[in-house]
Amino acid sequence: MMDLFGLLHLDELSHGLANLSMFPYFDMAHYIVSVMSLREQPGALQVSRTSPLACWFSSMLFCFGGAVLSGIMLAEPPVAPLSNSTSILLASIIWYLVFYCPMDLVYCCAALLPLRLVLSGMKEVTRTWKVLGGVTQAYGKYNDSLLVMIAIGWARGAGGGLISNFEQLVRGVWKPETNELLKMSYPTKITLIGAVLFTLQQTHYLPLQKQHLMLIYTVFTVVNKSRMMLTGSSTSPFAPIESAIYKTLFSGSSPYTALTTDVKEGNIDNGTTNRMTSTTATKESSKNVAAGKGKSRSLKAKEESENAEATNYKKTE
Amino acid sequence: MMDLFGLLHLDELSHGLANLSMFPYFDMAHYIVSVMSLREQPGALQVSRTSPLACWFSSMLFCFGGAVLSGIMLAEPPVAPLSNSTSILLASIIWYLVFYCPMDLVYCCAALLPLRLVLSGMKEVTRTWKVLGGVTQAYGKYNDSLLVMIAIGWARGAGGGLISNFEQLVRGVWKPETNELLKMSYPTKITLIGAVLFTLQQTHYLPLQKQHLMLIYTVFTVVNKSRMMLTGSSTSPFAPIESAIYKTLFSGSSPYTALTTDVKEGNIDNGTTNRMTSTTATKESSKNVAAGKGKSRSLKAKEESENAEATNYKKTE
Amino acid sequence: MMDLFGLLHLDELSHGLANLSMFPYFDMAHYIVSVMSLREQPGALQVSRTSPLACWFSSMLFCFGGAVLSGIMLAEPPVAPLSNSTSILLASIIWYLVFYCPMDLVYCCAALLPLRLVLSGMKEVTRTWKVLGGVTQAYGKYNDSLLVMIAIGWARGAGGGLISNFEQLVRGVWKPETNELLKMSYPTKITLIGAVLFTLQQTHYLPLQKQHLMLIYTVFTVVNKSRMMLTGSSTSPFAPIESAIYKTLFSGSSPYTALTTDVKEGNIDNGTTNRMTSTTATKESSKNVAAGKGKSRSLKAKEESENAEATNYKKTE
Repeated sequence: MMDLFGLLHLDELSHGLANLSMFPYFDMAHYIVSVMSLREQPGALQVSRTSPLACWFSSMLFCFGGAVLSGIMLAEPPVAPLSNSTSILLASIIWYLVFYCPMDLVYCCAALLPLRLVLSGMKEVTRTWKVLGGVTQAYGKYNDSLLVMIAIGWARGAGGGLISNFEQLVRGVWKPETNELLKMSYPTKITLIGAVLFTLQQTHYLPLQKQHLMLIYTVFTVVNKSRMMLTGSSTSPFAPIESAIYKTLFSGSSPYTALTTDVKEGNIDNGTTNRMTSTTATKESSKNVAAGKGKSRSLKAKEESENAEATNYKKTE
Repeated sequence: MMDLFGLLHLDELSHGLANLSMFPYFDMAHYIVSVMSLREQPGALQVSRTSPLACWFSSMLFCFGGAVLSGIMLAEPPVAPLSNSTSILLASIIWYLVFYCPMDLVYCCAALLPLRLVLSGMKEVTRTWKVLGGVTQAYGKYNDSLLVMIAIGWARGAGGGLISNFEQLVRGVWKPETNELLKMSYPTKITLIGAVLFTLQQTHYLPLQKQHLMLIYTVFTVVNKSRMMLTGSSTSPFAPIESAIYKTLFSGSSPYTALTTDVKEGNIDNGTTNRMTSTTATKESSKNVAAGKGKSRSLKAKEESENAEATNYKKTE
Repeated sequence: MMDLFGLLHLDELSHGLANLSMFPYFDMAHYIVSVMSLREQPGALQVSRTSPLACWFSSMLFCFGGAVLSGIMLAEPPVAPLSNSTSILLASIIWYLVFYCPMDLVYCCAALLPLRLVLSGMKEVTRTWKVLGGVTQAYGKYNDSLLVMIAIGWARGAGGGLISNFEQLVRGVWKPETNELLKMSYPTKITLIGAVLFTLQQTHYLPLQKQHLMLIYTVFTVVNKSRMMLTGSSTSPFAPIESAIYKTLFSGSSPYTALTTDVKEGNIDNGTTNRMTSTTATKESSKNVAAGKGKSRSLKAKEESENAEATNYKKTE
């Protein structure tokens, strides 16, 4: 592996990348893309008119959500990101320009495909740094716990998505039926994979130098993001692997493989319930059937709308 | 008291109990019963198919909710439970077996009454250790505050229930109209009593040795749980005491004793409102009547369903 | 400025004020007014009958919400307020008397306008101390970050309001469509201004002595609160300034100024969406129009009810 890197003169490149400073250009790209994706949330524009403060707070959660979440998880002050005045100032200026610029100039320019492509690519680069930062921070506190390192790296890199329920609450929106754990978006998935890889590298289970892994991961995320934006497709590159893992591990209990279909699910679910609760079965179970059906139908509707959304490349990240 | 213990040769028994290790058998029983009660939540099986990760996270909250909650309350890292690799691994294996075991073997076996009885009894034993652990932990930080000790002991012992609203959110379920403070379940009540007793023991207000209190409390919880499971009854042993306390303390203001009845409540509630708000009364109050009625009706419906549920012994803990 | 204070013999007065102890009388007034405003929340009386514990917990959040919130933000134990036994005992006694006093004597007396006026005035005085306490606490940890100091001062002074969504959840009420960031109430606004002023004073950007600022701010809040209670008006003294700031800063992008009107908003919002998403536009946009309209209509209804509420002086604080 080392030889391959040496052969292709990639060693210097990876060193150069590892020494790259995120501030200010890459951070700016991250803020612009984040604030733009907030602006494209349904209802966000209206909130920006009725309550600039809620809009600003929401933007800061989009920009610094990872730092806030990983701070909470490690019992460090969640206000800490606010103390980095330069970053906050930069993010606030960008928030102001994206939402309130005269003639809406900034948003319209940044939304042009070529510029947006570059900005999104730069934002993906910051992901590597954030995940690595999270893993390193957790390593300092819990150096023998892989799970904690993965969790903090993931939280730091995909924080905005993971706390989206509470970010939406700031804007008066509440969608309890969905969250990033129930239905992971592409950025959340790629961040989780990154967190696992960097954790394995940190604990020397993965025989790769840090800068090489950074190069590989960054190139992968940038290329993949660009591909998705250009083709407008949302087919995750992990779909076959996921499907294989799912089939191997999580569909073991044969009586339940039919669970994904609509009506049968309700019946089987009640089947188990009935087996257990002979006392209050009949009344409860008929309720459950109805509830189960309603539930799965609404879930299905949600998935459809999400898939429709996914074909559009301007997803929240 | 000491003499009584000496007489009955219970002293050695209580010492033996106090030196009992929870790991691995009792912890395992706790994980099995917890994961099974998650599986029996409406909709949980479906989540286990659509999103194994959300299901796993929910299971961990059922198993380690107390540690997470008491960690947050004491500003200690809520990820700390994740750093205990052995426990997490054990809980994860049990989660996997309960949800995805081929032929559903594990769940069906564990759900058989005799086995479930033993497992539930063992889980009750862990409660003593968790409550005591919480009280001791709080005593180290706030050694002159009974309330903090009670709160942390309670949170550690009944954490899964107390954070159930947020645990449900992980699975896409949101039931704001109910929580363990509004309508305490039996496990939450018994844990609160335990937290009070162990706090009084720790601060020497209760003239009992720690191991004796542990023995008494453990025997009481195990016997009571077994009784409830065998008879299928949910009559709390504290019902008369609660009722007496309630009547003495919380029904003092005579004009409001009729409040529990449905329609009158709405009227009286508005009565007070009217007395206060002479300006915008009429429009608001008519709204309130409607809201009040709707509210109390839905609360009533909820209570009924909960009572129905309570007659079933497989309650969430 | 100093001369003016000297001239008017206000220097001694401000020193006297700065040395005033909040405990016990002003704290008591704060607890009484807070618990009374909880009692005046729709549904709170019913909760006090069905679950005294949830009612007590809610009351404590009204009384100590600021300390809890600023504790969380600085990663200090949120249970810390519970460790101050005297305050908790005092607040609990007041909670008991306000909700359960025989003949409802305490509430009826305290609700009489002259007494309520005095209590509310005293409560406003505690605000100065709380904001200052928050700013000083944050200054100890982040002495070069104005934003953190403002945030902590604000959280400490207006905590009950800022966490109202979660306080309501304790009582089984969930109103995600509103929060203090989306639609600030008067107490939240005045606290924010106080936090800014005390932060500027602390960092010497404001050339005023601390005790003088305390006097000015306290007099302003007390006078303004009394005026609002006596006239029953809710016209904020900052309305013209707010309006000017809003017009200057947040209505820059001309194409969106029409956004506040109902139907146009939906159309323009979709306009932007359409410009961006040529692929899945038609189906989505028609949905958005409907969603946008429904949303804005419900928001409008909410605002109306809030305005109606605002004319009433007994608002939650």
